[in-house]
Amino acid sequence: MNDTVDNIRIIAFDVFGTVVDWHGTVAREAAELGLEVDPGKFALAWRAGYQPAMREVMERGEWIILDELHRRILDRVLDDFGIDLPEEGRRRLNLVWHRLDPWPDSVEGLSRLKSKYIVCSLSNGNIGLLTEMAKHAGLPWDCILSAENFNKYKPHPDTYLGVARTFDAPPDEVMLAAAHHSDLEAARNCGLQTAYIERPWEYGHERPKKVDPWEANTLHASSIVDLAEQLGC
Amino acid sequence: MNDTVDNIRIIAFDVFGTVVDWHGTVAREAAELGLEVDPGKFALAWRAGYQPAMREVMERGEWIILDELHRRILDRVLDDFGIDLPEEGRRRLNLVWHRLDPWPDSVEGLSRLKSKYIVCSLSNGNIGLLTEMAKHAGLPWDCILSAENFNKYKPHPDTYLGVARTFDAPPDEVMLAAAHHSDLEAARNCGLQTAYIERPWEYGHERPKKVDPWEANTLHASSIVDLAEQLGC
Repeated sequence: MNDTVDNIRIIAFDVFGTVVDWHGTVAREAAELGLEVDPGKFALAWRAGYQPAMREVMERGEWIILDELHRRILDRVLDDFGIDLPEEGRRRLNLVWHRLDPWPDSVEGLSRLKSKYIVCSLSNGNIGLLTEMAKHAGLPWDCILSAENFNKYKPHPDTYLGVARTFDAPPDEVMLAAAHHSDLEAARNCGLQTAYIERPWEYGHERPKKVDPWEANTLHASSIVDLAEQLGC
Repeated sequence: MNDTVDNIRIIAFDVFGTVVDWHGTVAREAAELGLEVDPGKFALAWRAGYQPAMREVMERGEWIILDELHRRILDRVLDDFGIDLPEEGRRRLNLVWHRLDPWPDSVEGLSRLKSKYIVCSLSNGNIGLLTEMAKHAGLPWDCILSAENFNKYKPHPDTYLGVARTFDAPPDEVMLAAAHHSDLEAARNCGLQTAYIERPWEYGHERPKKVDPWEANTLHASSIVDLAEQLGC
């Protein structure tokens, strides 16, 4: 174990894909709604709209919460698939991101880490979304932090450094845990420590994700429980 | 029970005095430090500086977190009492607000309310302070909301309406619970529902506080557990 992990006081988690299974939950709800579309493809298409839509908003120097961004993308994706869903159904489906299920190890892993660290979210999801998700999934956050706290989406440095500032900590007392190397790289560039969490099924079982370690990360874990083990929790 | 309570979806709690016992904890730490001062009077003096210092900052259109405000007041109060405390001691004492003890009913009351409502803080304390306090006191918030989320202190309307906006709720789906009628009045003026919590010993046992009901409040409770009972939790 790296010496520097002794400095860690706060662990901030990316949420979508790292703590909760967006693909599985969105696909299941799409299937339950009887949408005439392959549920897995529908989930992938909705999520695929997220990065470009977010970049567009950031480039215009705007700020909107993720619920609104999700809704704009949803309308476009439904159009693309030629699906006719009335307003009330769209509104309800858009809130599926508030009801995502955790990965099987998430609740135990976070609970164990809480015994030693401040454990918070750092997600582009808005605070209301993350709060309802935490109640639904039983996620025992010490504190919900969101892009909404900083009016910037990840990977803007204000988000990573905002966590450190919130807890009056130097950046290396904060570790970001995420299933995405790009997120971790941006955090590292701000001086945070990083832990990669393997989530090979983030995009569904038909599309396994590469989960190779990157040397630059402080830690590499097969699950959040494994991260807790590595940190002696 | 008032019909309107059926609308409530979110209960936001004032924290200092309502959920935690600032007077008892600050006085105890002052005594433990061996400060040459009556510990109860010291606690009262520190807290008494809070409203005027906050008003001053707001009138200048500034924003600073409560940790900084507390420190400015502490330095003044130590001066007033003629107490010489080195920098390290001041820094540590200033964080006593992160270590406040809950009232005996707070943890059970909040836990029961969580089964039915979104239960969050709405405090002028900063997010880091409230997070560390929650860990110390075992406060099971669904979400920590703070003046820091809105860059305004209570009683600014942006704070009360900010809770509603965070959860995409009309104001009357939010109830503020507090031990201070002025806080509740400001929330009511924004359309929130209100619950008064009796805390007769907020200022210490030598200085009992009047806890008479005000008719304008939606509910009046002798404790947070009593509030939970009244709301069927």
